[in-house]
Amino acid sequence: MKAFKSFILLIKLMKYAVKIEVSLKPGHSNPEGETITQLLKELGYQVEKIDMSKIYTIIIQSSSQTEAKIKAEEMCKRLLTNPTKDNYAISVVEQ
Amino acid sequence: MKAFKSFILLIKLMKYAVKIEVSLKPGHSNPEGETITQLLKELGYQVEKIDMSKIYTIIIQSSSQTEAKIKAEEMCKRLLTNPTKDNYAISVVEQ
Repeated sequence: MKAFKSFILLIKLMKYAVKIEVSLKPGHSNPEGETITQLLKELGYQVEKIDMSKIYTIIIQSSSQTEAKIKAEEMCKRLLTNPTKDNYAISVVEQ
Repeated sequence: MKAFKSFILLIKLMKYAVKIEVSLKPGHSNPEGETITQLLKELGYQVEKIDMSKIYTIIIQSSSQTEAKIKAEEMCKRLLTNPTKDNYAISVVEQ
């Protein structure tokens, strides 16, 4: 009897560092930035304005760079950003 | 009578965008990052860890790029960072 062959589908998971920069959409108020601007002015600095953003560097396991980026997009939409007021930019680097 | 000459020292102030990235020193706990890691795991993502940092983009008037960087260093020490737990990196771009 001929031997059966078993096929095992091997998906190798790689590690990726996904960098997500979340910033405020133009026109939205930034109370923290305004307070810091005011404080720096009081300290004598000629500051015009301060924009603030937050960077999440996420180490994630994924089968490809493209899939890592798709997952990062999903994470932004489901948890990390508020579509009404936030912009975001994603970059992916293999670890 | 010979005319007096008046010398006026003109210091032209330029605009610079100073980018300050503030991140947590290694070994310090990051409760927000840990919570987000947990939430993303519950949503089904294979996340290992999340590092977070904050970027201040400050528009400042200064006489030179070097002076803008010195001012940014001062701002970090006086207001923007906590030397016990924060690292920071400064980059300056002329506007």
